[in-house]
Amino acid sequence: MDEHTAKAFDLDLRELESDIAEMGAGVTKQIETVMVALDKRDGALAHQVILNDAKIDALQSKIEEKAVVTIARRQPMAVDLRQIVGALRIANDFERMGDLADNIAKRILLLSDETWPNEIILKLVHMVELVVDQLARVLDSYARQDAAEALEVWRNDEEVDWLNNSLFRELLTHMMEDPRNITFSTHLLFCAKNIERMGDHVTNVAESVYYIVEGRTLTNERPKADLMTVPPASSLRQ
Amino acid sequence: MDEHTAKAFDLDLRELESDIAEMGAGVTKQIETVMVALDKRDGALAHQVILNDAKIDALQSKIEEKAVVTIARRQPMAVDLRQIVGALRIANDFERMGDLADNIAKRILLLSDETWPNEIILKLVHMVELVVDQLARVLDSYARQDAAEALEVWRNDEEVDWLNNSLFRELLTHMMEDPRNITFSTHLLFCAKNIERMGDHVTNVAESVYYIVEGRTLTNERPKADLMTVPPASSLRQ
Repeated sequence: MDEHTAKAFDLDLRELESDIAEMGAGVTKQIETVMVALDKRDGALAHQVILNDAKIDALQSKIEEKAVVTIARRQPMAVDLRQIVGALRIANDFERMGDLADNIAKRILLLSDETWPNEIILKLVHMVELVVDQLARVLDSYARQDAAEALEVWRNDEEVDWLNNSLFRELLTHMMEDPRNITFSTHLLFCAKNIERMGDHVTNVAESVYYIVEGRTLTNERPKADLMTVPPASSLRQ
Repeated sequence: MDEHTAKAFDLDLRELESDIAEMGAGVTKQIETVMVALDKRDGALAHQVILNDAKIDALQSKIEEKAVVTIARRQPMAVDLRQIVGALRIANDFERMGDLADNIAKRILLLSDETWPNEIILKLVHMVELVVDQLARVLDSYARQDAAEALEVWRNDEEVDWLNNSLFRELLTHMMEDPRNITFSTHLLFCAKNIERMGDHVTNVAESVYYIVEGRTLTNERPKADLMTVPPASSLRQ
């Protein structure tokens, strides 16, 4: 790579980094907005999240295009190549987080005629807060190329999983107590699952940051509580 | 690109195509096995699916690595570049379909002490059959680079969505009738959702095939019934 190409390539990489930061900020905004919509039972805010999802999708397409053109044009090797592949992966996870926020927003609109179960909603909001916090940290680890911070985020997903499992038990009990609770509980069950999956995507982003910086993949699986999302039937049967 | 490079590049592309076909066959096998496990209530088969998921993940890593090295080494342009980017996207969708099969397998193991609700299970099995059928067709469209067939698969996702919605209503009614039905119904609710999402990934693969062949993206959104996965509370309230 001659000096001119090297400079042009460096510019490409900086642009890609700034696109990822922009997309990360956009997804954060979407998740925070859906959290407020949930908390305040605000249909107008939920609508806003649904409308803005297309912007997140457009950012992903832009990043993908730029990444591929950069690989083809500059033939990067080693760490530079990882930067680009990592950006592709991160954009993919952000796009899916955007979809999950959009899905929660749609459920909020469906729920608006229900009695709002405040206590459960507060727990959902708390789960979202944890995800937003993790997302901020992983964006920071990306900006600073900090593998140690990424690793910490990666190890820190259990709390969201744990809250999800506890909320699931609660919702099931709620459903068993009164059939009139079943429909909205089912919506909230899916909201909780969506938030848990957002947390999983943050973990994926942490893996990508680690891969970019360290050049190897985090292979040891985190202790993952997915199986526990619904407790064994026997423990709940009345 | 000189003749030697062109030949080497062509070989790279053929390898990538054959890796995608192999991964597609592997995912098909996983989905078919989980379908039989569901149908026959076979815990050993479900275990097999869980164990085999790592192979699907490994295939994705292999494809990603090969794709990136090929882009960097050969600097492909236009249709060749699309082939590689398309392969990356398809491998990503296959990997997620594998995860969904794995998740259903885990739920089968949790369900094994339950009374098996045969009628509902049969409907789930039928949903999986439709997905397997769509998957076979999209793999064929990829092998033959047939944009028209891909478009047909893309337009054909509604039946799985429709079945999912109808099953959801049924499961909710089931839950309302007797609280003892709630726990396993919740598992089956998530199984149905997982199958519906498999169908969405097949649709994504169809989009990727179309993009590879035609060089443009299918932008008009399909009529998507996701909002309907849980019927409005009012229509079900007892």
